[in-house]
Amino acid sequence: MENLTPRGTRDFLPEDMILFNQLVNTIRKTYEKYGFVPLNTPVFENLEILTKKGGGGDEVKKEIYDFKDKSGRELGLRFDLTVPSARVVANNTSMKMPFKRYCIDKVWRYNRPGKGRFREFWQSDIDVYGVKEVTAEAECIACTSEALMNIGFKDFMIIVNDREVLDEIIRDVGVPKEKIVNVFRAIDKLDKIGVEGVEKELKKLDLRERTIKKILELMNISGTFKAVLKRIKKKYPNNEGLKRLEELYRLLKFYDLQDRIVFNLSLVRGLEYYTGPVFEIKSTNKEYGSLGGGGRYDNLLKIYGKKDIPAIGFSIGIERLFSLMKEKKLIEKKKSLTQVFVASTNKKMLDEAIILSQTLRQAGIITEHDLMNKSLSKQFEYASNKKILFVIIVGEKDMKQNKVVVKNMISGKEEKMFLADVINYLKENLGISS
Amino acid sequence: MENLTPRGTRDFLPEDMILFNQLVNTIRKTYEKYGFVPLNTPVFENLEILTKKGGGGDEVKKEIYDFKDKSGRELGLRFDLTVPSARVVANNTSMKMPFKRYCIDKVWRYNRPGKGRFREFWQSDIDVYGVKEVTAEAECIACTSEALMNIGFKDFMIIVNDREVLDEIIRDVGVPKEKIVNVFRAIDKLDKIGVEGVEKELKKLDLRERTIKKILELMNISGTFKAVLKRIKKKYPNNEGLKRLEELYRLLKFYDLQDRIVFNLSLVRGLEYYTGPVFEIKSTNKEYGSLGGGGRYDNLLKIYGKKDIPAIGFSIGIERLFSLMKEKKLIEKKKSLTQVFVASTNKKMLDEAIILSQTLRQAGIITEHDLMNKSLSKQFEYASNKKILFVIIVGEKDMKQNKVVVKNMISGKEEKMFLADVINYLKENLGISS
Repeated sequence: MENLTPRGTRDFLPEDMILFNQLVNTIRKTYEKYGFVPLNTPVFENLEILTKKGGGGDEVKKEIYDFKDKSGRELGLRFDLTVPSARVVANNTSMKMPFKRYCIDKVWRYNRPGKGRFREFWQSDIDVYGVKEVTAEAECIACTSEALMNIGFKDFMIIVNDREVLDEIIRDVGVPKEKIVNVFRAIDKLDKIGVEGVEKELKKLDLRERTIKKILELMNISGTFKAVLKRIKKKYPNNEGLKRLEELYRLLKFYDLQDRIVFNLSLVRGLEYYTGPVFEIKSTNKEYGSLGGGGRYDNLLKIYGKKDIPAIGFSIGIERLFSLMKEKKLIEKKKSLTQVFVASTNKKMLDEAIILSQTLRQAGIITEHDLMNKSLSKQFEYASNKKILFVIIVGEKDMKQNKVVVKNMISGKEEKMFLADVINYLKENLGISS
Repeated sequence: MENLTPRGTRDFLPEDMILFNQLVNTIRKTYEKYGFVPLNTPVFENLEILTKKGGGGDEVKKEIYDFKDKSGRELGLRFDLTVPSARVVANNTSMKMPFKRYCIDKVWRYNRPGKGRFREFWQSDIDVYGVKEVTAEAECIACTSEALMNIGFKDFMIIVNDREVLDEIIRDVGVPKEKIVNVFRAIDKLDKIGVEGVEKELKKLDLRERTIKKILELMNISGTFKAVLKRIKKKYPNNEGLKRLEELYRLLKFYDLQDRIVFNLSLVRGLEYYTGPVFEIKSTNKEYGSLGGGGRYDNLLKIYGKKDIPAIGFSIGIERLFSLMKEKKLIEKKKSLTQVFVASTNKKMLDEAIILSQTLRQAGIITEHDLMNKSLSKQFEYASNKKILFVIIVGEKDMKQNKVVVKNMISGKEEKMFLADVINYLKENLGISS
């Protein structure tokens, strides 16, 4: 008991961490290809940063791990990567715009742990600061879409909506201003609780029968992006949000993503700080569900600094995707990255095994040898357990002729060859370019 | 004020983080080449894990960031990467030995911040579990040495000593058992306070004049590894530590490191949990100082579990090295990774710029384009500020002929070429293989 990790947290053993690193690297490389750069902030912030009103913390305030340091400073572990970045950007007066940063790191929330829900978990975000234009949305959507395709999720739709559209409509159907947020919250649950559920929630808000009916009707509008846009535009021709979505749709053609766009008025995306377009990427495989999401939050940064800087962000649900990939066996666990194990037939041969291992490493081949005076069969057991593809056997007799035996552990094929030929043989069979 | 990071912590802006990531990647790749695999643990542990007696926490206990979660659980941020790993290994009964893990991550200590000293800082460790043999030391030294060479520190010495050697000698010269640790602590300060300083410290311990003289004499023994070994072996022929060091020296020949080994009896390395060989890598450039260090700690793991597992670890002083590299300008700051900026002469041309950018990205080239309707000169300013090597100018007239202008921002050379030739031209000039 006392030796376990704290509730809601867990270790990533190598067999998980190897895969997780690969996932992160693929996403990172994609982010970088679009010009996003890494930003890293402390894991804890001054508590007042995290609890600033309107800073997104309102919803998670009670979930913050807060504490005092030994001098009595009030601190808190960050609950997302957006607030720390907003602090940095809002206070860095010399920063050139646009500023495009990515961040793949851990965050903490004291919530109720459950299947796939942890108190310590990872987030993977890109954010663009300083851009009012919807080009930023297009780029974030394109970059995130490519990252998802690169990690193996190729079939998805991009759902979009705009807070300004939703706002005008909701007001227009007769929801009083003070109830708008509550209506948003009700609509946001559509996926979880269905139309009847949302209806119940709306009734609790004491809205007129007719208003509720209209809201539910709006949530139900479906069709191609263009069809939905046309229908809504007819009624609200001057809505800025609609103009933005139209331009976004036009731009996404250049990223080859137009076919994937769906306009859905029921997309709200919880966080109250969104001000313009919001989006969510959903797998067409219903079992997979949501892959990521984001939106524009032009009013957040002024909370953290003097400057008023537009901002837009897009997260990949990296934790969910990782669990999913393991659960659905989309990836195979790996206990080791090692490509070659150099086995020695006796203690004297260990010296030779070390020398050969060093030669292979210098050629860029990931290599291990025995460290514990294991018997040859135990060495094979180790290599087999770690799923190492090649075992080289360094034996006394063979070595006198400068030869070793190379065994492919999958095919079982063994070949005796000169030491001088080993590197080329392995490189060829491991697909390493010379 | 309220918007700054908590005392002793700092942000890594992209210009730092890009370099830091490169440093980490190079080290990681080297660790992996020797078969080390990544392990990741939560940033906080149950406090009792961190404060277990003999767990290394004795020395840093008062520096732990400890706090209670909302259910009253006592937690603490990890102060190193050794204790969490020890917990994992000691409690994982199915783990195959040897277990070789690496970990490059943040740790926290509430100490007095100063130049290069932070309360949140990074560590970079490899550890081998389950190996009694000194082959583990040899591999850790070799792997860490290679990592240091790969990040650019090629000139260094490897200082070694053994706790068992030091123990026998110190007892032999007449230090009573209860004062051994204090004598260790005094010797450990040699580098900082010099021989006179150590003498003063020893006098405080109320030791005999003759004992102090002998200790100082021992600290002063110098010469080649072999010469020092021979001299000490004459007096203590049966010391197990000496036998280990002799074998370690023999093995390091196979890693081409024998010339770098120095045997120095004054090397103690603070942490009291070391039980056998201890080592430190020091740059031959005195300004650079210590690059990393480690040792064997065979008794630590039984504190965290039922099993008695030998262990040995080696850390790279990644924080120090990073500061050093920046301070001595061994690396150049980079604000961006972007290789090409596609500039557009007017809003209409932005569409073309996006299309071209996507084509370049698909070819693996890191590309950005304008997002903010900037003027051409402002776009050039952005590219120049970010030190982006190539700017492609997409102009209306040129595009009618399917041509663009490619400008090398360092040489100033401009070339007009067909769109179809751009990728090959850039790949060649950026050194990207096709």
